[in-house]
Amino acid sequence: MRFDVLSLFPEMILGACCHSIIKRALQENLIQVNAINPRDYTIDKHKKVDDTPYGGGAGMLLSCQPYLDALKSVEKIKNSKTIIMSPQGKVFNQNMAKEFAKKEQLIIICGHYEGFDERIKQLAQAEEVSMGDYVMTGGELPALCIIDSVIRLKEGVLGDKESSEYDSHYDGLLEHPHYTKPRVYEGLEVPEVLLNGNHEKIKEWRRLQQFIITKNKRPDLFEKFLKSDLSDYDLKILKQNNLF
Amino acid sequence: MRFDVLSLFPEMILGACCHSIIKRALQENLIQVNAINPRDYTIDKHKKVDDTPYGGGAGMLLSCQPYLDALKSVEKIKNSKTIIMSPQGKVFNQNMAKEFAKKEQLIIICGHYEGFDERIKQLAQAEEVSMGDYVMTGGELPALCIIDSVIRLKEGVLGDKESSEYDSHYDGLLEHPHYTKPRVYEGLEVPEVLLNGNHEKIKEWRRLQQFIITKNKRPDLFEKFLKSDLSDYDLKILKQNNLF
Repeated sequence: MRFDVLSLFPEMILGACCHSIIKRALQENLIQVNAINPRDYTIDKHKKVDDTPYGGGAGMLLSCQPYLDALKSVEKIKNSKTIIMSPQGKVFNQNMAKEFAKKEQLIIICGHYEGFDERIKQLAQAEEVSMGDYVMTGGELPALCIIDSVIRLKEGVLGDKESSEYDSHYDGLLEHPHYTKPRVYEGLEVPEVLLNGNHEKIKEWRRLQQFIITKNKRPDLFEKFLKSDLSDYDLKILKQNNLF
Repeated sequence: MRFDVLSLFPEMILGACCHSIIKRALQENLIQVNAINPRDYTIDKHKKVDDTPYGGGAGMLLSCQPYLDALKSVEKIKNSKTIIMSPQGKVFNQNMAKEFAKKEQLIIICGHYEGFDERIKQLAQAEEVSMGDYVMTGGELPALCIIDSVIRLKEGVLGDKESSEYDSHYDGLLEHPHYTKPRVYEGLEVPEVLLNGNHEKIKEWRRLQQFIITKNKRPDLFEKFLKSDLSDYDLKILKQNNLF
């Protein structure tokens, strides 16, 4: 899979690719990450990429020409998708990560400091994606978050094939609590059920914890889960514990 | 303001601080960012920081001792807050950014690859914070997103004092569209109202666009906004356009 990131701070993108899972996936040729700087495409003689807003107001705006010409320079391969990081976008979630992971190419347009001229979004035919209801200085860190969450769904990227299936949000629920050695730490004990080797009981306890934790911490997700197509196994545990 | 980040990939934190707004805020001594590696605090002779989960299952878990001893090593200053990046946490938003920006110190505990032993959260008395409903490999990129969104609210960090007040989410609404030169680009024109210099009309048009865009793209935010304490000015525009 190939990621092409349009950014005025390409070194921020490439720098973060020198670590951890992104680095490993690059080394194993499972992904490619290119950073394209719109400043290299501006026809302005002072290399400007922004200008003052029509109608007045504080700050500068990123101009159409450098961004759209930089975008045109990106070789589009089959099964490609273009997104633009924007606080007005649909909030990124695990389903979007799964959808993006099916693509061969993800082109990510990042702003920095300033907003985009509205026409960039229109002409780029890019889906607006937001990382959440907070404001950031640029799209670079969000773009890296997306790359990270997408590549870990690609076959071969995670060492242990099972890992991503047990993540929070994988099936719309939060994770159950985990414990490792020692058995007692500063007076806090590992729950008894995890120590007795009864795998059926452990499985059931963990599933119940998922229900309880999701219900308490994220009632919105729990509501959604209850309305989904529940397995007999889940239904039994839910009913036994008056959660359904 | 001081950020202390506990991470097994401290170079990922410090590397991202060499760019853009975080770099500038560091250079101007407006913030400090320290990265603390729990691996430097493990008493395990093989420098291990993780172990297998009680009750079985895929993957490894981050152990109490290295994380909690690393945390103890952090000098706590007055008006400090400790958070732990976790998909089980409260989803980060602009109000949390504002709250964190009032602190003198933010201690951020990041996991990587693996989950935490549940007791780390309890003993660290850390608030669990999630970046959204998606899964990431580590807490490093989320921690950087938080640092970015918090510091831009601190006095003196943004060049233009007004900038952060016009951001999306600043008052719970999305931004209005922006346009810069040229007046026509690939056939797309800047809306007439922005060109006529009537500032009262421009202000009203922009506010209306905020209402319309938020209603269309994020009806959840618009509902919330309508229930808030509305100004007479907003009420008038809303009513004139049958939005209230």
